[in-house]
Amino acid sequence: MANRQDEILFHEFYDKQLSEYIPHFSVDCVTLGFHAGMLKVLLCKMNILQKWILPGGFVYHDECVDDAAIRILKKRTSLKDVYLKQFHLFGHKDRRPREEADEILDALRIEDRENHRLKSRYLSVGYYVLVKYGKIQIRPNVGEELDWFCLNELPELYLDHEEIIKKAIKSIRNDVGYIPIGYELLPSKFTMPELRTIYETILGRELDRRNFQRKMLSTGLIIPLNETRREGAHKSPNLYSFNKERYIEAREQGMQLMHVIL
Amino acid sequence: MANRQDEILFHEFYDKQLSEYIPHFSVDCVTLGFHAGMLKVLLCKMNILQKWILPGGFVYHDECVDDAAIRILKKRTSLKDVYLKQFHLFGHKDRRPREEADEILDALRIEDRENHRLKSRYLSVGYYVLVKYGKIQIRPNVGEELDWFCLNELPELYLDHEEIIKKAIKSIRNDVGYIPIGYELLPSKFTMPELRTIYETILGRELDRRNFQRKMLSTGLIIPLNETRREGAHKSPNLYSFNKERYIEAREQGMQLMHVIL
Repeated sequence: MANRQDEILFHEFYDKQLSEYIPHFSVDCVTLGFHAGMLKVLLCKMNILQKWILPGGFVYHDECVDDAAIRILKKRTSLKDVYLKQFHLFGHKDRRPREEADEILDALRIEDRENHRLKSRYLSVGYYVLVKYGKIQIRPNVGEELDWFCLNELPELYLDHEEIIKKAIKSIRNDVGYIPIGYELLPSKFTMPELRTIYETILGRELDRRNFQRKMLSTGLIIPLNETRREGAHKSPNLYSFNKERYIEAREQGMQLMHVIL
Repeated sequence: MANRQDEILFHEFYDKQLSEYIPHFSVDCVTLGFHAGMLKVLLCKMNILQKWILPGGFVYHDECVDDAAIRILKKRTSLKDVYLKQFHLFGHKDRRPREEADEILDALRIEDRENHRLKSRYLSVGYYVLVKYGKIQIRPNVGEELDWFCLNELPELYLDHEEIIKKAIKSIRNDVGYIPIGYELLPSKFTMPELRTIYETILGRELDRRNFQRKMLSTGLIIPLNETRREGAHKSPNLYSFNKERYIEAREQGMQLMHVIL
């Protein structure tokens, strides 16, 4: 049973602002950050709902969909500049099974269920967002939790949200042959294994350590620094930084990178 | 001024079925076919409107968006199996300028303009569709024309439809490094220059004739036939066909093709 506070929040979210938004349409953000050697995704849990969901929201009648995605994300993080990319519209008629709403409607003691907005169909457009984990603070809305989860240890997710995450990764995987990745995710100084881990997670397979290093350096996208990081008694890996100008140009215009990931 | 027939059609299209569709949402299809050595796009012109538009339509409340795209296309062509792919959601708030509707509302002598559906905002999801030109017949709806246009000789297009076409081509361009193209567009027997022209049009640049032939053959996607086509007194180019099984596998699972298009 939901407490009064949660009920009020829920009604505000789902009912009060109903007419302000484009109906039957939502935005879901797959926010990825790199931390402790792993690629993680930001998930959210409304108290009223016992499953984790992707941070999402709706689009105002006079708002661009891209701007809605940015607004939704900024509300829950301290991000200023956001690199985000639309990757897919999820339009299956049964993607939001009507029974899924019953648990919530139960908790809210709502009787007129059949016509409740929670039972209605939503199309949802997915955006993936790459962020520097160390540079943002997460700010849950009142009545919800926010947390990072490893991509290979996801909790049970609401509706088709796991599929949305998988599709985001697949979409990035399709891009990495001609669009670089890493700058948006890593701190200004990073090690080669960190960069390689990002590629390996996205590709879902291991890459040869030496080949990756040699080929990545040959792209001119990263610069070796005369510094190492002390990681333990016998480990002090070299540090690198991105050639920002070259990276942004490659991100915008594309670049032949397929050989790096073979 | 529109004639009575056009007015009736228009009202049927825009008003009568209004409640059957998801509001504020449409589907636009970029249908590409290869004919006379050129890649062409299928466009449509409603009599009521003096500009060409992409064949499009709306999504029923109980219909998957993918199925709506197929239905919209099948209605206007004789296609049975359709290869189509969603490529982008167009969600800019001003993509359908309110003034654009005035011409139509004038022709229809509609007075209550401000609240007319034509003035309202639409999100539109784009699908690209690859078809065998020779295998389909176009069937315009009553009250509209349908015709093929070369991609480099487009007529004036309604709203952002030219941008939608460009985005479709860009999306295919991003894919051709790891997804083959051609089988859906060419007849069962084709020449190497025909296949190369498709790649050149998508990439927006010329490819070396010999390198393309050598590399494309090395992929195993196409099979040289012991046949030639008589094209003139001194021309009888060799014919090829696709290795369908291998092609479909590559299309579904991806394949390294970047070297072919360099």
